[in-house]
Amino acid sequence: MATLTDLHRLRVDPGDALDLPDRATQIDLPGDPSKDQIEAELDGLRRRIGEMQDVMFTRREQALLVILQGMDSAGKDSTTKAVFTGVNPLGIHAASFSVPTPLERRHDFLWRVHAQVPPLGCIGVFNRSHYEEPVIRRAHGELKNGEMKRALRQIADFEQMLAESGTAVLKCFLHISRDEQRERLQERIDNPLKHWKFDPSDLQERQYWVDYQTAYSQALGATSTPQAPWFVVPSDRKPVRNLIVARLVVQALEALKAPPPDRKPELDGLKVV
Amino acid sequence: MATLTDLHRLRVDPGDALDLPDRATQIDLPGDPSKDQIEAELDGLRRRIGEMQDVMFTRREQALLVILQGMDSAGKDSTTKAVFTGVNPLGIHAASFSVPTPLERRHDFLWRVHAQVPPLGCIGVFNRSHYEEPVIRRAHGELKNGEMKRALRQIADFEQMLAESGTAVLKCFLHISRDEQRERLQERIDNPLKHWKFDPSDLQERQYWVDYQTAYSQALGATSTPQAPWFVVPSDRKPVRNLIVARLVVQALEALKAPPPDRKPELDGLKVV
Repeated sequence: MATLTDLHRLRVDPGDALDLPDRATQIDLPGDPSKDQIEAELDGLRRRIGEMQDVMFTRREQALLVILQGMDSAGKDSTTKAVFTGVNPLGIHAASFSVPTPLERRHDFLWRVHAQVPPLGCIGVFNRSHYEEPVIRRAHGELKNGEMKRALRQIADFEQMLAESGTAVLKCFLHISRDEQRERLQERIDNPLKHWKFDPSDLQERQYWVDYQTAYSQALGATSTPQAPWFVVPSDRKPVRNLIVARLVVQALEALKAPPPDRKPELDGLKVV
Repeated sequence: MATLTDLHRLRVDPGDALDLPDRATQIDLPGDPSKDQIEAELDGLRRRIGEMQDVMFTRREQALLVILQGMDSAGKDSTTKAVFTGVNPLGIHAASFSVPTPLERRHDFLWRVHAQVPPLGCIGVFNRSHYEEPVIRRAHGELKNGEMKRALRQIADFEQMLAESGTAVLKCFLHISRDEQRERLQERIDNPLKHWKFDPSDLQERQYWVDYQTAYSQALGATSTPQAPWFVVPSDRKPVRNLIVARLVVQALEALKAPPPDRKPELDGLKVV
């Protein structure tokens, strides 16, 4: 198995003719750390994410939007929990996007996600996102190539606008193998405590596996930009997946270089009575 | 100083003729635990809150709304951070209410808070709330007694509706002394790293201290109901305040008795291919 030498190896290059089946769903970390060592590093990264959000909050000039996509059972919920539990709830807003409501269907597909974008000073996490609609429809053959391209151009424009407005965008595709998905869905069936997570439609969608991989390859390749890059995160092993996403988030927050809060000289010598 | 023997001693009884100046802003915990001991207990409570929210999330039949009110610098933000950092961000929604926007002013005063109520399965935290509007206006003499009573009746009706719809409501008044507020505001002036928190209007509002205590006494007394009780949390000492709020939250979540997720018999023997 390949070893992760540099997070940038996971990035999708702008304009890349990406083929997801060529990308690893499993990867070794340098030094092959134990589960405990990974958990210890993750713990430190969680704390660091919380601290950096605290600083970002004082000026409210920047925000970070983390978009998580992946096939069913890829671990979007668990990753959110593992990476972001440790951020002050006042500074984070996580949004899940499910099947659109009738009202949402009467709007353009970016409308409902735009409403959930984090305010400056905060971290936003999208559990699924505006990528769902075009990717699902494309995988089911409901979207012609020209229509798909148009939707992806609209997405790229939208994300560019966010970046230009102070919101950095980090996109993680949690990449699992078809075998790994089978095991995870089976576990949801075999373990009664996980029945609540099981959705019969997951089995139907699984039949479109190849079509989804193709549609996602097109989507990721067309929308990975310097201001809103995609990373393909090997996600068959959960602790490795969590650690990689946490490192990517830390890297994205560090790139913001959020300055410490301003001193206000007008407060000098003021006494409260 | 009094010792906290039972959380229920902090509760405001329904219809109570409450006078906040009679309530303690400092309290001793039994056994007088050290700061480290308090932090260790808080750590366990945070974990417990996260676990109970996880269970509540599986059925999405219940929610908990925690409302934090208090004079400026009482610690609404810090309490949110101390008590709720540890909940999966997908299962918590914290909302801060500041000066109403022009659009919000064109709506009834419950409109903007209703929009932020947690969905079933989640914990909501209100940092300030629908109590601000009537209390501020009453303290400034802009609301006659009859108008105040009407607003409080509307609040009680609203909270009853929430409770009847599956959302338990827990309300904490973070109670500090006037001296403690002076010290905290002065610290925001003297410490440049805290300048961003300082709002000159806090000094103006401080002049209405007695009027605020009276308005809050009326509000808490009139709206503490069995389904949406108020607790007056002694908050001059921050670790004690955090611990009491965390205990109240655990108690409120335990009272929900959220059952574990349902088993779905129709999944028996299903095999994923």
